[in-house]
Amino acid sequence: MTIERTLWMTEKGKVYFIDQNKLPFTYSVVQVDNYEELVRAIKDMNIRGAGAIGVAGGFAMALAFFRYEQDKTKTLYIDEARRKIMTARPTAYNLQYAVEKVYQAGIRSGYLEAFAEAQRIAEEDISMSKSIAEYGLTLIHDNFRILTHCNAGSLAFVHYGTALAPIYLAAEKGMRVHVYVSETRPRLQGARLTAWELQKANIPFTIISDAASAYLMQQKQIDMVIVGADRIARNGDTANKIGTLEKAIVAHYYNIPFYVAAPSSTFDLNCPDGSHIPIEYRSEDEVLFVEGLTERNERQQCSITFRGANALNPAFDVTPAHLITAIITEKGIIRATEKEILRIIRR
Amino acid sequence: MTIERTLWMTEKGKVYFIDQNKLPFTYSVVQVDNYEELVRAIKDMNIRGAGAIGVAGGFAMALAFFRYEQDKTKTLYIDEARRKIMTARPTAYNLQYAVEKVYQAGIRSGYLEAFAEAQRIAEEDISMSKSIAEYGLTLIHDNFRILTHCNAGSLAFVHYGTALAPIYLAAEKGMRVHVYVSETRPRLQGARLTAWELQKANIPFTIISDAASAYLMQQKQIDMVIVGADRIARNGDTANKIGTLEKAIVAHYYNIPFYVAAPSSTFDLNCPDGSHIPIEYRSEDEVLFVEGLTERNERQQCSITFRGANALNPAFDVTPAHLITAIITEKGIIRATEKEILRIIRR
Repeated sequence: MTIERTLWMTEKGKVYFIDQNKLPFTYSVVQVDNYEELVRAIKDMNIRGAGAIGVAGGFAMALAFFRYEQDKTKTLYIDEARRKIMTARPTAYNLQYAVEKVYQAGIRSGYLEAFAEAQRIAEEDISMSKSIAEYGLTLIHDNFRILTHCNAGSLAFVHYGTALAPIYLAAEKGMRVHVYVSETRPRLQGARLTAWELQKANIPFTIISDAASAYLMQQKQIDMVIVGADRIARNGDTANKIGTLEKAIVAHYYNIPFYVAAPSSTFDLNCPDGSHIPIEYRSEDEVLFVEGLTERNERQQCSITFRGANALNPAFDVTPAHLITAIITEKGIIRATEKEILRIIRR
Repeated sequence: MTIERTLWMTEKGKVYFIDQNKLPFTYSVVQVDNYEELVRAIKDMNIRGAGAIGVAGGFAMALAFFRYEQDKTKTLYIDEARRKIMTARPTAYNLQYAVEKVYQAGIRSGYLEAFAEAQRIAEEDISMSKSIAEYGLTLIHDNFRILTHCNAGSLAFVHYGTALAPIYLAAEKGMRVHVYVSETRPRLQGARLTAWELQKANIPFTIISDAASAYLMQQKQIDMVIVGADRIARNGDTANKIGTLEKAIVAHYYNIPFYVAAPSSTFDLNCPDGSHIPIEYRSEDEVLFVEGLTERNERQQCSITFRGANALNPAFDVTPAHLITAIITEKGIIRATEKEILRIIRR
């Protein structure tokens, strides 16, 4: 019903991933055997989405240990790898979480333990998606019209995802849901990835321009908003794809419940609040060019305006905790407050 | 400094206009001599923007009288023309205002009077832009960073425009202003037209994704928002390009002044409130395809996602009056209340 795994690794030091930059036009699986290529894939967003970035980071760290054990003359190799993988994307916390865990395992016991730890993180990712689906399902009623932004579905994780997970489960249980998919400029992950996933899962959806969501909320066409998260601070402030903040403010204005769905690994308990979350600025070309399929069925970068125009491209924004109705985690649905987060998330 | 007239008409029954669908890639002026072609140009957005649509409607009505006087056997021609022009775009009120005025003049005294009335509306459009510029200027301070959405500049009117008019005047007076241009999906009038106008006027600007404005407001990067309007109801509720509502809600949330700039001809005093303003839905293809310039410098419609995906494309939304700090009109800066609108706008 939904897509298979977004990425996986073999013990022989090979990592496979769906190239998300080619979707929805081409479905292709890429194989790499060194961490540098995996770092490049994370930076270029061939692999993207909070969970998938984290798991890819863990695999990359494991690959570094694999290489190191083949050629122990590579001094400093591991520490350099750790630093390069960790900084491939600055906002996603799952990346730091996974790289650190695999690094510690590898330092302690070598490649096989690093590989096992990376696999554990991937399996955890799948099981937490299932739990988030179960908890989130309790918030969805029949005939709900749900707005989501960007992609926090199967592709953003190993399988099933976060924001889309309860929607998949609702549909599997025969409930009728309709998903409004905010296209998510500049990279169009909504129109390209979320729409593609929903189509494959036979869940009815409608793509809208990012700017159209306030209109739909005003017209009482939206029953709830669910989005993912790239990092959640200790007080509940949540970094997610640019445009999330504005949807949260508008949902608040119209009294529409606004949920964040994310696993424990997205909570950065050392980060006191959103003002400490680094926001990634990406190339202005992502705004000034749109990749699409031409009439001749060629994939092309199309310039949307004149050469020499300039743009600003913050990739994330931070939604303050008080605008978040609740956070759906694999440990339950929790309020976005420091007290509740420390009680439930801290082990 | 700014562009010349967006459209004009000669007494010999010819109308000329800048083809806005070709901008910013090609600057071309089109000539038509019958109202049907002008209606087509309005529908297809070769001419767009509240004032320009109104003036074009007036010209189209005058063209119908020109033709009718050449061939009086065309019974019903004038009334059919009036109806077809009036309904070319449903949301813009300037269209109804101008068509009705020219129609009355033509019915009373024939083509020459209809032409004179259409010219008067075009001249009024220019003089009201100058007045809006003067009043709006009093709200702008040196080093202001101003957010605008869509295009309410010279191209949206005959010359100078509304939302951009005070910005042009501020720059002419040597004030430093920076304009954040919301790209305005689906048709990208911000990235294509507003950016192009500002570039020509040497005013510094930055294009952003529509979804990035909340982030900039949160980061205190925006001092004021100015947008245009397509129709203003008697109580101050304002229809404008889809996405305006969300910017108004976010500006309100961050206590940033939110101004609408529009002439008297945009006020529909027979419309009690925003719920009575018809909202135009346009083709889903405007969302699913983006026109751009390929690497080979060809203009192409690029599909942004897989064939068969579906989208919804409301072209406007209505911002409730209480979110509008004030309306900048050619008669002064007024509060968005029925009392003040009836006192100032009604002659």
